Amino acid sequence: MPELLSEHACFGGVQRFYSFASEVIGLPMRFSVYLPPGAEGKRLPVLFYLAGLTCTEETFMIKAGAQRVAAQEGLILVTPDTSPRGAGVPGETDSWDFGAGAGFYVDATQEPWSRHYRMYSHILELRQLVLATLPADPARVGIFGHSMGGHGALMLALRNPDLFRSVSAFAPIAAPMRCPWGKKAFGGYLGADEAAWRAYDATELMNDMTTAPFPGGILIDQGLADKFLAEQLYPDAFEEACARAGQPLTLRRHAGYDHGYYFISSFVEDHLRFHRRLLG
Amino acid sequence: MPELLSEHACFGGVQRFYSFASEVIGLPMRFSVYLPPGAEGKRLPVLFYLAGLTCTEETFMIKAGAQRVAAQEGLILVTPDTSPRGAGVPGETDSWDFGAGAGFYVDATQEPWSRHYRMYSHILELRQLVLATLPADPARVGIFGHSMGGHGALMLALRNPDLFRSVSAFAPIAAPMRCPWGKKAFGGYLGADEAAWRAYDATELMNDMTTAPFPGGILIDQGLADKFLAEQLYPDAFEEACARAGQPLTLRRHAGYDHGYYFISSFVEDHLRFHRRLLG
Repeated sequence: MPELLSEHACFGGVQRFYSFASEVIGLPMRFSVYLPPGAEGKRLPVLFYLAGLTCTEETFMIKAGAQRVAAQEGLILVTPDTSPRGAGVPGETDSWDFGAGAGFYVDATQEPWSRHYRMYSHILELRQLVLATLPADPARVGIFGHSMGGHGALMLALRNPDLFRSVSAFAPIAAPMRCPWGKKAFGGYLGADEAAWRAYDATELMNDMTTAPFPGGILIDQGLADKFLAEQLYPDAFEEACARAGQPLTLRRHAGYDHGYYFISSFVEDHLRFHRRLLG
Repeated sequence: MPELLSEHACFGGVQRFYSFASEVIGLPMRFSVYLPPGAEGKRLPVLFYLAGLTCTEETFMIKAGAQRVAAQEGLILVTPDTSPRGAGVPGETDSWDFGAGAGFYVDATQEPWSRHYRMYSHILELRQLVLATLPADPARVGIFGHSMGGHGALMLALRNPDLFRSVSAFAPIAAPMRCPWGKKAFGGYLGADEAAWRAYDATELMNDMTTAPFPGGILIDQGLADKFLAEQLYPDAFEEACARAGQPLTLRRHAGYDHGYYFISSFVEDHLRFHRRLLG
């Protein structure tokens, strides 16, 4: 059972922070939950949010302003951390884009990362934990995220469309095999053989699809003043892959918006309502 | 002229961070501005937010989720910092409730604080700067805040009802002369003679009123699970003073809510709409 670290009344519901002994990671892992009002005796839809580089399980809950809409829509929000903490891997805190705070939602296969850095399996483990301990409906689970976590959401949903029935993203690292962040992370966690990277690249996964895995559509918001857009994000590549697979995609390009939470907060309401509509 | 440090598109408007050479403080001071969409060629109402202990000009803009409503209502939001920074007063960073991050919105009279710690005059200076450099209507300026800043807002409005036409607060330190935070701050900044404290205590100021300075009412929200309520906040004292002066006060007591930004974000929309209605 997860240990409740703190809770705060918020928009008639409750914002909670938990820790639990993660079997997958082999260390204690934190996560946050927003439970909307009126959850007693019900099975509510759940929306997982995967955060970006350097973030924690707190960032989204503090900065995005999503609880207001989640309270209105009766949505449970869940945010995991972005990596193991205290794994003790030499150099894990040397870079802000690799190691601690930068797990990239993959299961590392390379020593010394492979022992604890197993964030892909951790998200699936956390999904199970949430379904077992919160008033959550296993048939109505969605996932979204930002940047590294926007890609993580796309990738996890494409690999597990039975587990995550709706997916959206803010400024995802949409084709990590093509960009410096992705090459560094995948090379470090998965090794030099790029064949092993494809299973974790949302654009490559979509390129392999012969039918649309999310016929209700995928929503992506991208700011056009995002300083990482040209070198790191490649939304066009994912858009092309969706077109090839016949996957409906709404990719909204917003003039003037950058990569941060002022951008996310401006459009988070649209994402929650998008998921709520698809999850029913 | 203030120097623009950064800006971010947000809800169709723009979130900005500025620095300027404060004459009152004698040091560079930062502040933040949210400018709603459609401000060009207009004079919009302005709402100042004074933050609490340990906060900066960023805290409210990151955590409160107020920009959404400000965009809808056409309100400019302005948040100053909570103290001088880099004043070099020995010990100014030793306590979280006195010195840096804890200016209490008073003009210090005691050495060595009196040279730079002049936050009362700084707020008035910043009001003038905002009116001179932003599309702001000098006849429609309101003020609110949280905790130390909730009290600062009440105190500044009571002393300057011609300059601030509407006032509200979240969990204000409503009677600082009666509580440990206030005694420490007023003693340190203003000296041992409590007669000098009264001009900075909102409850004492209200006790001296013979007519209601804000006939349109004052709004205060207070969480009943606030761990500082019993020892530090004294909203009842302010309520009694309002009743004595005939000052209409809506003091809402919210079961379960604590002292933090999950509380503030839950009710910030009500505050913005309250000010917008009074400012016209």
